[in-house]
Amino acid sequence: MKNRTWTVYLSGEIHSDWRDRIRDGVASADLPVELTGPVTDHATSDNCGVDILGEEPSDFWKDHKGAKLNAIRTRTLIANADVIVVRFGDKYRQWNAAFDAGFATALGKPLVTLHDPELTHALKEVDGAALATASTPQQVVRILGYVCRGTL
Amino acid sequence: MKNRTWTVYLSGEIHSDWRDRIRDGVASADLPVELTGPVTDHATSDNCGVDILGEEPSDFWKDHKGAKLNAIRTRTLIANADVIVVRFGDKYRQWNAAFDAGFATALGKPLVTLHDPELTHALKEVDGAALATASTPQQVVRILGYVCRGTL
Amino acid sequence: MKNRTWTVYLSGEIHSDWRDRIRDGVASADLPVELTGPVTDHATSDNCGVDILGEEPSDFWKDHKGAKLNAIRTRTLIANADVIVVRFGDKYRQWNAAFDAGFATALGKPLVTLHDPELTHALKEVDGAALATASTPQQVVRILGYVCRGTL
Amino acid sequence: MKNRTWTVYLSGEIHSDWRDRIRDGVASADLPVELTGPVTDHATSDNCGVDILGEEPSDFWKDHKGAKLNAIRTRTLIANADVIVVRFGDKYRQWNAAFDAGFATALGKPLVTLHDPELTHALKEVDGAALATASTPQQVVRILGYVCRGTL
Amino acid sequence: MKNRTWTVYLSGEIHSDWRDRIRDGVASADLPVELTGPVTDHATSDNCGVDILGEEPSDFWKDHKGAKLNAIRTRTLIANADVIVVRFGDKYRQWNAAFDAGFATALGKPLVTLHDPELTHALKEVDGAALATASTPQQVVRILGYVCRGTL
Amino acid sequence: MKNRTWTVYLSGEIHSDWRDRIRDGVASADLPVELTGPVTDHATSDNCGVDILGEEPSDFWKDHKGAKLNAIRTRTLIANADVIVVRFGDKYRQWNAAFDAGFATALGKPLVTLHDPELTHALKEVDGAALATASTPQQVVRILGYVCRGTL
Amino acid sequence: MKNRTWTVYLSGEIHSDWRDRIRDGVASADLPVELTGPVTDHATSDNCGVDILGEEPSDFWKDHKGAKLNAIRTRTLIANADVIVVRFGDKYRQWNAAFDAGFATALGKPLVTLHDPELTHALKEVDGAALATASTPQQVVRILGYVCRGTL
Amino acid sequence: MKNRTWTVYLSGEIHSDWRDRIRDGVASADLPVELTGPVTDHATSDNCGVDILGEEPSDFWKDHKGAKLNAIRTRTLIANADVIVVRFGDKYRQWNAAFDAGFATALGKPLVTLHDPELTHALKEVDGAALATASTPQQVVRILGYVCRGTL
Repeated sequence: MKNRTWTVYLSGEIHSDWRDRIRDGVASADLPVELTGPVTDHATSDNCGVDILGEEPSDFWKDHKGAKLNAIRTRTLIANADVIVVRFGDKYRQWNAAFDAGFATALGKPLVTLHDPELTHALKEVDGAALATASTPQQVVRILGYVCRGTL
Repeated sequence: MKNRTWTVYLSGEIHSDWRDRIRDGVASADLPVELTGPVTDHATSDNCGVDILGEEPSDFWKDHKGAKLNAIRTRTLIANADVIVVRFGDKYRQWNAAFDAGFATALGKPLVTLHDPELTHALKEVDGAALATASTPQQVVRILGYVCRGTL
Repeated sequence: MKNRTWTVYLSGEIHSDWRDRIRDGVASADLPVELTGPVTDHATSDNCGVDILGEEPSDFWKDHKGAKLNAIRTRTLIANADVIVVRFGDKYRQWNAAFDAGFATALGKPLVTLHDPELTHALKEVDGAALATASTPQQVVRILGYVCRGTL
Repeated sequence: MKNRTWTVYLSGEIHSDWRDRIRDGVASADLPVELTGPVTDHATSDNCGVDILGEEPSDFWKDHKGAKLNAIRTRTLIANADVIVVRFGDKYRQWNAAFDAGFATALGKPLVTLHDPELTHALKEVDGAALATASTPQQVVRILGYVCRGTL
Repeated sequence: MKNRTWTVYLSGEIHSDWRDRIRDGVASADLPVELTGPVTDHATSDNCGVDILGEEPSDFWKDHKGAKLNAIRTRTLIANADVIVVRFGDKYRQWNAAFDAGFATALGKPLVTLHDPELTHALKEVDGAALATASTPQQVVRILGYVCRGTL
Repeated sequence: MKNRTWTVYLSGEIHSDWRDRIRDGVASADLPVELTGPVTDHATSDNCGVDILGEEPSDFWKDHKGAKLNAIRTRTLIANADVIVVRFGDKYRQWNAAFDAGFATALGKPLVTLHDPELTHALKEVDGAALATASTPQQVVRILGYVCRGTL
Repeated sequence: MKNRTWTVYLSGEIHSDWRDRIRDGVASADLPVELTGPVTDHATSDNCGVDILGEEPSDFWKDHKGAKLNAIRTRTLIANADVIVVRFGDKYRQWNAAFDAGFATALGKPLVTLHDPELTHALKEVDGAALATASTPQQVVRILGYVCRGTL
Repeated sequence: MKNRTWTVYLSGEIHSDWRDRIRDGVASADLPVELTGPVTDHATSDNCGVDILGEEPSDFWKDHKGAKLNAIRTRTLIANADVIVVRFGDKYRQWNAAFDAGFATALGKPLVTLHDPELTHALKEVDGAALATASTPQQVVRILGYVCRGTL
């Protein structure tokens, strides 16, 4: 198994550094893991549709255009991932994160959730579909290390 | 097509009367529609796991047990539905609603979202996956009527 | 097999009476066939989106709303059909008919095309995916009769 | 994600230089994109069947042989693509382009359409299934750049 | 389980009375089994294509037309069957029977083969994919009875 | 939802009366549940292959014939069930029960396990795939009641 | 597309040199094609089961063991092929070839048949499922060349 | 086929050296086989959940956490394997091995079982789903050699 690379999609919160911490942890441990994810620059993600395809007078269609462009990327990368990690922070509604979790679950992809314990009740259905629920990025790194290498 | 019954799953918010209004509208219009949905009694839904399978000292596992019992029902009914309607209200996180929307999308089920216009930006990814976005239950009834009967 | 009902989706041209002629033929022969299809009233089909969900200033989004509402119906009925018949007439572009043919083919549904011989070259890819190419509605009725009953 | 190559299938019109312009744009931007597509030499595509497998007295079977040979290539490449771009021009019926769009949609592939605004109404069902509708090849290049790199 | 009807497709040889014997056995035992199958009138099956869709000067296309019309029926019924029984006789090549067996296997349908022991070696790959190999119609009836009722 | 019948497959142990207790509970509660399962008469299940298809000198092939005949029934009924309940008792190896659990899991069927708490460690992988783990048949009946009716 | 390698499975007849001729043609034309296929040494293929896993007193089980070992290889390679070529010769029953053709068809793999014209009627169902029917290995090489390179 | 690597997942017993013997045999024969499998250190496998994600007071949830972490690895590797070998020893219940066998069977993966003949009756359903049943690791190596190279 020394050549297998695991592809891990990091979905969810874009306002904290959790992706960087997982990336650093993966690099430090030299794990055979390729990390993918959505576009995490908020303005870019919001404006991509109108920027490329033309302005819209209504917010609904501006958002619609952008959301669909992003979906080209996110659905393809989720469908090609071995594992999906979904992070929920304490701000914003983050419905796209929960949407990704449901999408990945229906595809049969192993799901790992990452959130603070105070979100437990609100996230019970999402956690109920997950194979692991972590509260820190370091735990996610250890999960990936265990999954890839079989050691603790 | 006079004998075809459409099965429509109503996911999401459980604290307003939107399901009743859709049910009434469907009945008034005598549509060939069977409505299904999750358990909508909040306390029952929260406690089902521990009530049937035994108490848990930790909130996480109490929620886990309950969420999984509910998943037996919700995933089966979503997988057997022709159309999924997902309602987002203005309270609570409603991550399970977005999870259902993602789950249904990955199964290729037609998705209809129902929410107030002020949630447009927060729901752009979910709306981007939907075939219709309504703001009132009556619009959903009209959609179902149009889909079943082909008349406006 | 006396109880089996075959469900046949009739896609394509809405400006001639080919569906009626198939319906009459099926009724005359008393075939165990349930016919389904898109909404065939042109104005209704075009306006359904804005009529139910609100006006749009741009033609693109008006069409988009309508097309997606219609897709709730058409994709569900195609996915539930045993056989898809797609009719191409001599007017209009009828790209939705060809789209349906491709959609049905990828789902593994038996496809029957119906068109005049002068469209043969333009339709070669669609006919190449079909299990039969008819030039009259009566031939389609005979195909359905043969498929259901095994007699000529 | 630096090593991921996106495979993009370019379907549709073969009488303008849109494929070259996308190819040039992808090369200029040095995008990690592999472009595939049908055989675009008109005469070759029309004659392949009879040229390899023998003449046919009837046009129908000549076309049939050719269409099926082409389908070996097109269906395989579509099934192996990450994204499908379908171009509609202002000439010819281009039913094969719409067929490919329907085929790709049923496989769950992200679809991008490319056509002039005056075709909006005729293409509403196809656009309704697309995640983006562009009017210039340069927009398609920017979409691919955004999807691969996440920058505008 | 008293209401479950098992649908059993009987594929293969059309020149002996094995289907009648299974039908009689199923009727005698009053099994909840619906039997389906291809068109078994040889001339009808051979001529259906040209009879309905017009004569062909070449044998290849005459056969092609007929084979595809028959495929509308056979593939649909196989896809809708719970169990496939495939009979091989001692005459003719019966490649369609083996084709059906392979088709059903790839769909995950339980396969029962029926043939004389002297065909064992020639049919080893087909029998290798089967869940039972019978040598008489009466054994097939007993298999169906056991599967439906659980008694010998 | 008043007309929906849930189909529940009861897999596993055949030497205690757990199926009867579930059946009685379902009847008492008048649940819209149809129970299916394997052949539970031990001798019949063991001998079906050789009894119908002829004796075998070796135990391996005797078992093989029987196991495959049983698989016609079990795989079909599992594939047609909404929910799979798998019971593990304290005797015998019951590898077929665990096999059914894995088979159902890969099909995406909701799984409920039923066993005494002392088997927890030995069954951790199976329970890990289950949406509920019960220790008494009465709990299973309550689960089914909750799933069907939404009440405790 | 310069880096794409097409995988082509060569099924069927093992008593003539057709595979060598295709292999030579592919090599001469320097096509980006990887050819796979079953074990073509007749004695090895027949005896593999008993040679590795122990003798069997009955022919049926000897064949069964061998056929299943071969199926590990053949089903895996067919499932991983882009195109399936099935050759029928004039000797033997070759039911395994027709089985492979049906198996590949149900998986949605493009099928090419290769046989003399005198087998046309016997093979009509198999040819009816094929995207091309060739009568010489050289035609198959040209088909592969056209599919890979788009030139005649 | 010289470049194809076969991926073989080795499931089951972790208390004997059968994996090493297969690994040695594969290396000696220089087979193009990549072997994968679960974490085989018993303590690590049991404790991974609580070690990474925090202690649990109850055995059930400790096991649950661990089993699910292991499932991220095992289900992914099984889904990516060409062949699954499942070993049953004479100790412990090994329900996870039978679960993996059922899981792999439902995914359509070729299954090879490995166990002593005295387990034949207890494993009849699992062996009934297998394409080969071996009693020594050396036989498994020969099977893999035959499958990859086609020689005995």
